[in-house]
This record gives sequence, structure tokens and C-alpha cells, in this order.
Amino acid sequence: MGAALVALIERDGAEIATRTGIDLTVTRIAVRSLSKERGLSIAEDVLTTDGASIAVDPDVDVVVEVLGGIEPAREYITMALKAGKPVVTANKELLANVGGELALVADDAGVDLLFEAAVAGGIPLIRPLRESLVGERITRVMGIVNGTTNFILTQMADRGTGYAEALAEAQSLGFAERDPTADVEGYDAGAKAAIIATIAFGARVVAGDVYHEGISNISAADIAYAQQMGYRIKLLAICERFDDDSVAVRVHPTMGPAGHPLAAVSGSFNAVFVEGVSVGELMFYGRGAGGLPTASAVLGDVIDAAQNLAKGTHASIGSIGRCRIRPIDELSSAFYLNVEVSDEPGVLAAVAGVFGAHGVSIRSMEQEGLDAEARLVFITHEASESAVRATLKELSALSAVQRINSVLRVIGRDQ
Amino acid sequence: MGAALVALIERDGAEIATRTGIDLTVTRIAVRSLSKERGLSIAEDVLTTDGASIAVDPDVDVVVEVLGGIEPAREYITMALKAGKPVVTANKELLANVGGELALVADDAGVDLLFEAAVAGGIPLIRPLRESLVGERITRVMGIVNGTTNFILTQMADRGTGYAEALAEAQSLGFAERDPTADVEGYDAGAKAAIIATIAFGARVVAGDVYHEGISNISAADIAYAQQMGYRIKLLAICERFDDDSVAVRVHPTMGPAGHPLAAVSGSFNAVFVEGVSVGELMFYGRGAGGLPTASAVLGDVIDAAQNLAKGTHASIGSIGRCRIRPIDELSSAFYLNVEVSDEPGVLAAVAGVFGAHGVSIRSMEQEGLDAEARLVFITHEASESAVRATLKELSALSAVQRINSVLRVIGRDQ
Repeated sequence: MGAALVALIERDGAEIATRTGIDLTVTRIAVRSLSKERGLSIAEDVLTTDGASIAVDPDVDVVVEVLGGIEPAREYITMALKAGKPVVTANKELLANVGGELALVADDAGVDLLFEAAVAGGIPLIRPLRESLVGERITRVMGIVNGTTNFILTQMADRGTGYAEALAEAQSLGFAERDPTADVEGYDAGAKAAIIATIAFGARVVAGDVYHEGISNISAADIAYAQQMGYRIKLLAICERFDDDSVAVRVHPTMGPAGHPLAAVSGSFNAVFVEGVSVGELMFYGRGAGGLPTASAVLGDVIDAAQNLAKGTHASIGSIGRCRIRPIDELSSAFYLNVEVSDEPGVLAAVAGVFGAHGVSIRSMEQEGLDAEARLVFITHEASESAVRATLKELSALSAVQRINSVLRVIGRDQ
Repeated sequence: MGAALVALIERDGAEIATRTGIDLTVTRIAVRSLSKERGLSIAEDVLTTDGASIAVDPDVDVVVEVLGGIEPAREYITMALKAGKPVVTANKELLANVGGELALVADDAGVDLLFEAAVAGGIPLIRPLRESLVGERITRVMGIVNGTTNFILTQMADRGTGYAEALAEAQSLGFAERDPTADVEGYDAGAKAAIIATIAFGARVVAGDVYHEGISNISAADIAYAQQMGYRIKLLAICERFDDDSVAVRVHPTMGPAGHPLAAVSGSFNAVFVEGVSVGELMFYGRGAGGLPTASAVLGDVIDAAQNLAKGTHASIGSIGRCRIRPIDELSSAFYLNVEVSDEPGVLAAVAGVFGAHGVSIRSMEQEGLDAEARLVFITHEASESAVRATLKELSALSAVQRINSVLRVIGRDQ
């Protein structure tokens, strides 16, 4: 990403200067190793292994941090901000953990801390949320904010392949890391969700507040059932604000209607769907990762920071308050359940009885023979997470229930 | 819209003050008639019929213009800007004609002229283009920027109805005006296209530079053929920038692939698809009209303008240069042609010969019997507008050609 940014500044610098009056020069670059071949035409004395020196270098006006991870990024950024240098970062892990603290440092220093690239790569999202929608009461944000998992789910849906095969293909094409845990288990999306919730709701949310489930348990059968019933399965980061101003933030695979705008977001594309009381529904769509799109977002922030610096002003994130985070147990949703049972009389009645005992109402059911077993697929009406958990526990204990294959949350247009 | 804005400020003012430190008070409202019932709790002395008095009132910090039309909006805005008051406007006609001139007045006065609501209602588009993407070389913007025509085309596609019936339904539901000309003939979208091109390309484009065709000639048969061939028909505003920095801006019904993100934009929703060299493809989706969504966008601008005023700064539109506008004749595209011919031997050869004579290459053809006539449906490879026009002229002169039913431009993922 750093290399893409340097290349972009080299290619478009003249046009940017004409357009904006901002003349960008890459003065210093901190690297881990000076000997690595980078294929860029950089003067040798621009490179340094001493990151801290950049933060205080009087020749540096704006600092870009693309190290990733919390330390030493936090240390360098804090130093730079305190030295009066605006900072542009694409570091979601840092922001999702100590973003609030860094925003205060930036505000105290009267300089910008900008991070458009941290959440959805090249998609302008943070600036619209911070500025265009600052007067809007946003009630929910649902995002496809991880391209790896969206690529895998799209492959599974389009080709009918299983999870393992789709993951292997994503890895071979460079859409997934060799260790895909951060992506497929929802950690990456969770960090982004924390940042989105903070900006959208003006409420402090950190990575640890986010409930997450990944996609590694999604089967080809789940995808097929979803399609058959008019749904698509996406890994969604869902940020909600309730009437009492409490907030819930979660990441999990979600079945949503095939006609929803998010359902059409395929491959490694990202999209963020925003719902506000006045503005209604909005969606922002584009490349959520990749060197060039991400570098483009960083560059937009750099120009903004440079313009603000020249004017002696800076953007403010607005007041970020504390709020109650609702744990997952307090939420409710419709659910999809795929259960394998013995194919014998009375099983459906027994299973339905367990749902009923916990007040979980069944909206639709399909039964399919499976040798000596049968597969029951349920969609429930909206039910509380705790009621569904209790239902699942009791179902597992039924002798006729062989296996609970999968449990997915379902959203509709009006939920 | 004005009433929706006042209601919004009343409802959300306290939360906005907490969040941003900006305390909004509606000080003066210019109206055409003082006696009209508005259902708002406004003190009587807030209302005036003297618009000019607001522009110079020392108690007014920020002016919102939602009059529509060019005069007296231009006069009032100019007065307000020169008096050092930032102006927020949702007036596309004004901006598409004299926006460049007003931007200069604003820059000279050192205050904001903001107009997020003018192009795509509640969708944040102008600010992302101006700020987030200021460092990006945008090559093409394609927008569904008129909700009326998108509603009509969606009805035709979903229900198989003809244009007249779909228009009547749009009118009865309030999605179309009694005189729908400005919407259905592409004037509204054309004005918006001029504004988008100006901001996206930093090039001065006015309404008169925009080529436009409307949707009133689209038939149920065209929609059906499009769907059968895997396309959807949308009225698109297309703004392009070429390598030589010349620009072309046009509005016309367009056949695009069913899998394109714009194809999924249905009903009265709007969406703007942006292509940039680094960022790749972006799309912004939401409500392009309606009192509340539009008021939400105006409110975002008002808060921004108030914050900038307090800081003594203002946003700049950047330098807007002159550029060559390519006339439609110089453009090229793939085309869909639907031609009725006599059902007699040799007709197809004669028709194909005319295409060939003008260098227009046929990609696919379908023939369908129609009593004593036949209908030929062609999709061409990319061809110049002038070659296609010459082809059509010569086809019309063929004795076997009864009628050219329709001619539509076709875009693909890679065109």
C-alpha cells in the first residue's frame, strides 16, 4: 500500500497541484529494511529505519501511517500529532482499539487524524458519515467490509462449491492470506464495525465490544437452501443504535433477501448500507481492499489534511460519548436452522414442541429425506438470541436430533 | 423541502448541538405568501416575503436557498455570498447554468457555497467527489439521477406495462409531475449531469453542453428484448473524460448488463457509479428526491458551513478549467436496434449490407415473425454515433424497412 501511494503521488502529483494547489513531496519513508528492492524511484536518503524520526522531522508536514498493528504505530502517531503534524492512517486495528484516545490527542493538538482507508478501502465512507450525515440520526449500518469472505461466499453461491474449496481458490488468487483466520472468523470485519459504529453513532465502541462469528461453518447446503428460499448469505458487520441510545455491534453470516442491494455485492467488492431516520437508505459500494484503491483513499485524506494545515484548521470527529453496548443476548432476529433428525414418526412434533416451549415461532419449515435421517430447515419469526440459544440446547438433547448443522440469522427488508 | 428542513432542525437540533457544538436557529424564512398554512411552529415574525432582506440580515449567519429556478435565486445568493454568508442550495437548474460564476463569488468572499442536495437528494455524492476523490483521476461517472424515470422503467420491467400506463401510475403515486417533461425527456438528469461532470472532472460543463434523450419512446417490447438478452434499460447520465482531457456528457436510455450494480437500482432510488484510475469502481446509492432525504443533505451542508464559518475557513471547489466538450457525434457505443421489415427473401441481406457499408459491425441478431412483417433486433459492436446515424438514414430509405422502432445505446462492463 505504501508503495502504491508513492507511485500514485509520482503519477498524479502534477494534476493534483493544478487542481488543489497542494504540492505533494514524499520527504521521508520509514521501512523495516533499507536493502529491499521496491521498484520505485526514491532518492536513497528518503528511506530510514527510524520511524520515530519522521514523526518529529521539521521537513515533514503530514504523516501517513501504514505500518499496521498497534505498536509502534500508536507511539509514532502520538508523537506526530503532538508535534503538530496531521496524520493519515489506514490502520483499522489501531483505530478499533485506541482510536478514541488518538482522536483526543489530535483534537488537543489542533490537527487532523484522518482514516478513510481504514474501513472500506477506496470507498468514501468515513467522510460522508462524519460530514454529510452529521445531522442525521443513523439507526443502522450494515456492511460487507471484508472482501476475502465475500469472495468465498460468492464462489460458493455461484459454483456450488464447499467452503474449503472456495477458501483454497481465494488463497490461490491472492484474495485470502495463507492463515485466513482474521478474515474468515470475522476479526477484520469486527475491527471495522467498531470504527463505523463510533463514527456513525458518535459513541465509543472498541473491537472488544463487537460480537463476531465467522463463515467457516457455512456449508454448500446452507447456500443452496438460502437461494431456494430467495435469500443470499453474506458476512455482515451490523451496527445498530436503539431508541435509548444503546448500541449493538456484531459480525456474523447473515441471510438477507436476494432483492436487497447488499445481495448484489459480489466477489471481493465491499459495500456499506446505511439507514437514517431522515435520509432513508443509502449504500456505498466499491473496492474495500487492494493497494491502489486504498492508496487513493489515503491520498484523498493527505490532500485534505494538507489543505486544512495550510488554512490552520482541522476536521473534528465531533463529540464521542460513552454508551451502553447491548450484548448479543439482548438482541433478537429471525433465524435459519438446519437440523438433522432420525426419520421416524413424531420427530417434527417433538422438535416443534421445543421451539414452542421457548416462545420461538416458526415462520416456515422444509423437510427433506436423507437416508435414514431427515433434514429439517426452519426459518423462525423474530426471536431473542437467548430464547434461540435455549431452544438449540434443548434440541441437542433430544434423542431424535442427530445434529444441528447450522444456525444463521436472517434479516428482511423491514427488520 | 423547506418545511422538511425546518421540521428536521426542530426535531434534531438539540442532538446536533451536543454532537457538533453548532446551535441551529431558523431566524428568517422567505415565502411567497404569508397566509399559507404550513403546519410548523414558526414565530410569525420569522416569515417574510422579502427574500433579499434575508441575504443581508446581520442576524442571519447561513443562508439556505430552496427557491428553484435561476432568478431571483441567483440574485439573492450573490447578495448573501458578498455579505459574507455561506449559502447552501439544492437548486440544480441554477448550478447547472451559473454555478461556475457563483463559485467564483463564493471564493472571492471566502465563504462556502454548498449543494450536496442538488444532484442526488440525500445521497452523499458531491462531498465525496470534492474531497475524498480530489486526488483521483475520475474517468467516467454514470448515474441514475432521476427517480421518476427509474420508477417508470422499473414498473415497465416488473409488470410488462407500456410507457403510458407506467407514467400514469407514477403520476397517481406522486412520483411524476402532471407535466412530466422535465423528468421523462432528461432535462432534470441533464442539469445534474452538468454539475457532476464539473465536480468530478474539474471542468466547466453547463446544462447546454449536455446531450439528452428521454424515455418516452421506450416500449414494452424493448424492455422485454433487453431482459431476454440479459440487459436492463435505465436512463443514465453519463459523464466521461478522455485521455486528452476533453469531456462528454449525455443523458439517454441505456441498455446495461443485468449483473451491473446499476441494474439492481429499482423504483425511485438513485445511484451514481464512479470509475477512477486508482480507486476502480464506486457506487453511491440512496433516495435522490423527497423532502426528508433532501432536507437531510441540506442539513449536513448547513452544519458544515456553520462549522467552517466559526473556524473562519471554507471549502473550495478547486480549480475548474475550461475543456473541450465532445459533441455526441464524436462518441461511440454499442447499439440496440429494433427494426420492422417486410417478411420477404433477401431483406436481412439488404439490411446487413447497409450496416456493412457504414462499417457498423453486428454482434448479434434475432429475427421474429410478425404477420406479413418481421422484426429484426440487432446488437452492434462499438460503432461511432455518426456511422450509426448514417446507417439508420439509409435503412429508413430501404423499401423493405417498414419502421425503425427503437435505437438504444448499450454499455457493457468493459465499455
